[in-house]
Amino acid sequence: MKYPNNIRKTTSNNIVPVNYKNRGMNLESDINITNEYYIDTMKAFIYKKPTPIKLVKVDYKLAKITEAYFEKPSTTDYNGIYKGQYIDFEAKETTNKTSFPISNIHPHQINHIRNIYNEKGICFLIVRFTNLNETYILMSKDFLEFIDNNDRSSIPLSYFKEKGFLIKDGFIPRIDYLKVLEENGGL
Amino acid sequence: MKYPNNIRKTTSNNIVPVNYKNRGMNLESDINITNEYYIDTMKAFIYKKPTPIKLVKVDYKLAKITEAYFEKPSTTDYNGIYKGQYIDFEAKETTNKTSFPISNIHPHQINHIRNIYNEKGICFLIVRFTNLNETYILMSKDFLEFIDNNDRSSIPLSYFKEKGFLIKDGFIPRIDYLKVLEENGGL
Repeated sequence: MKYPNNIRKTTSNNIVPVNYKNRGMNLESDINITNEYYIDTMKAFIYKKPTPIKLVKVDYKLAKITEAYFEKPSTTDYNGIYKGQYIDFEAKETTNKTSFPISNIHPHQINHIRNIYNEKGICFLIVRFTNLNETYILMSKDFLEFIDNNDRSSIPLSYFKEKGFLIKDGFIPRIDYLKVLEENGGL
Repeated sequence: MKYPNNIRKTTSNNIVPVNYKNRGMNLESDINITNEYYIDTMKAFIYKKPTPIKLVKVDYKLAKITEAYFEKPSTTDYNGIYKGQYIDFEAKETTNKTSFPISNIHPHQINHIRNIYNEKGICFLIVRFTNLNETYILMSKDFLEFIDNNDRSSIPLSYFKEKGFLIKDGFIPRIDYLKVLEENGGL
């Protein structure tokens, strides 16, 4: 899934007419549709960063890239503004049914999450357990508390149930994470 | 300059060891070095977004992109957080000596700047008049006021002198735009 996924990432930054009712897509698509809904309704302005790509060969005449490679992002995938507040998050899917492998979040990203938390930004993870069809918000404070106090290589589902906020599947928008944050004191 | 510039853009998102004293570079390099200085000193966390690239052909086995094209960004190039505040800006150079052509800022970007201003984010342009070696911050409020009240296709230098904040060339960091904003009430 990695490269098709990345391909969507590079185009998902553009605002295009969207069918908010579109269903049955992956977490990234759900979030992109939700963000476009927030933008169209002027509720918030949160965007997906383009996937960083290392360019090797470019045909300048044709403005065509002929050799390039995907790079690992050093920050999170999404950031923006809501009511003047800085919003920053990473979204991940896992097929695990009992825990979320921390290896899904690169060390650079963990460091970034810590920086944003310390800088008083609103920072969190959105994690979907695809086989359970359950999607949780885990605030940076709780994520960092876990990794700072555990040697475990994964965060158990029970921790998400205890500390996280469950995002119920909506219709419009797909997953109204800002509403969930507001209802749970995450904002 | 466009494509070499874009090539730097795609790599400038990575944090690498930096010689802050490095001199005589273009505005983007100056800003990237300044942002890395802010990050290393934990003052602010402001990053350049990767250049959006449209992927056409990818060799999945090699994870190699064999055909891709540059896309115009729909938002500004830089955003991040400083003391909990959302920071968002675009940086442009012009060789003009008397005015800044508004065509340097795409309509999508102007719309984004308006949205961020309305959402109470700290949004601005950094414009360098390369032949004058003068670099100004123009706050979104003043930028929008000009384009909303003028039919001119360019913003005269005199408007930057009147409404903008001059960024003096520093040593470390290259251009301390956050300090200039603080000193001029831009934050």
